[in-house]
Amino acid sequence: MLPVFPAADGCCTPMAREPLGEADAAALARTFKALADPVRLRLLSLIASFEGGQACVCDLTGPFDVSQPTISHHLKVLREAGLVGSERRGTWVYYWVVPAAMNRLASLLQVPGQVSAPPGSGT
Amino acid sequence: MLPVFPAADGCCTPMAREPLGEADAAALARTFKALADPVRLRLLSLIASFEGGQACVCDLTGPFDVSQPTISHHLKVLREAGLVGSERRGTWVYYWVVPAAMNRLASLLQVPGQVSAPPGSGT
Repeated sequence: MLPVFPAADGCCTPMAREPLGEADAAALARTFKALADPVRLRLLSLIASFEGGQACVCDLTGPFDVSQPTISHHLKVLREAGLVGSERRGTWVYYWVVPAAMNRLASLLQVPGQVSAPPGSGT
Repeated sequence: MLPVFPAADGCCTPMAREPLGEADAAALARTFKALADPVRLRLLSLIASFEGGQACVCDLTGPFDVSQPTISHHLKVLREAGLVGSERRGTWVYYWVVPAAMNRLASLLQVPGQVSAPPGSGT
């Protein structure tokens, strides 16, 4: 597993607090690209929802209208982005979501205040 | 502005709590696609970091090595994803980040627990 994220410094500073640098933005964009696919999002969510937080790859093909090699490709993208971990046990590979990676992304997106800045309130 | 996100129900349930449905996953993937570009991430971060949380489009081209029409295209993608709002005032268009949209995404990504599930701890 080679996480493309976090990059260097500034990994956990909310992006609303200070402008993202080029390297951090590039690493972060790669991570969001891994999330920018409906099947990958459903896989991630399905894995995380499994009892014990782990799922056998044998449990992950049934709910999808795509082939097993396609599921394996999507799981590889998620793994390379550092969003899931995996381990072979006997015949099957097991997957789990990496909470630290997900929560780091969540922290980065957080913006103080829930209400949109009303037009005209700024400088 | 036509936010592609949130979709229907389940907009704010963390995706680790229950498996994402197809419609929610499709809408969410579109939003992450809007974030999956380094220039758009830097624009979003730059706008949010401006004093007062708003930025004139005239302030947003300087820091980038891309043309003004390219910046405008990226801003349009962010606006159509519901991540930024905009308003014309006189000569210039002003942009601001929509905190509710960013924080909703952050909530969706959050996973309980910071430590990866140790292999073998599940069922």
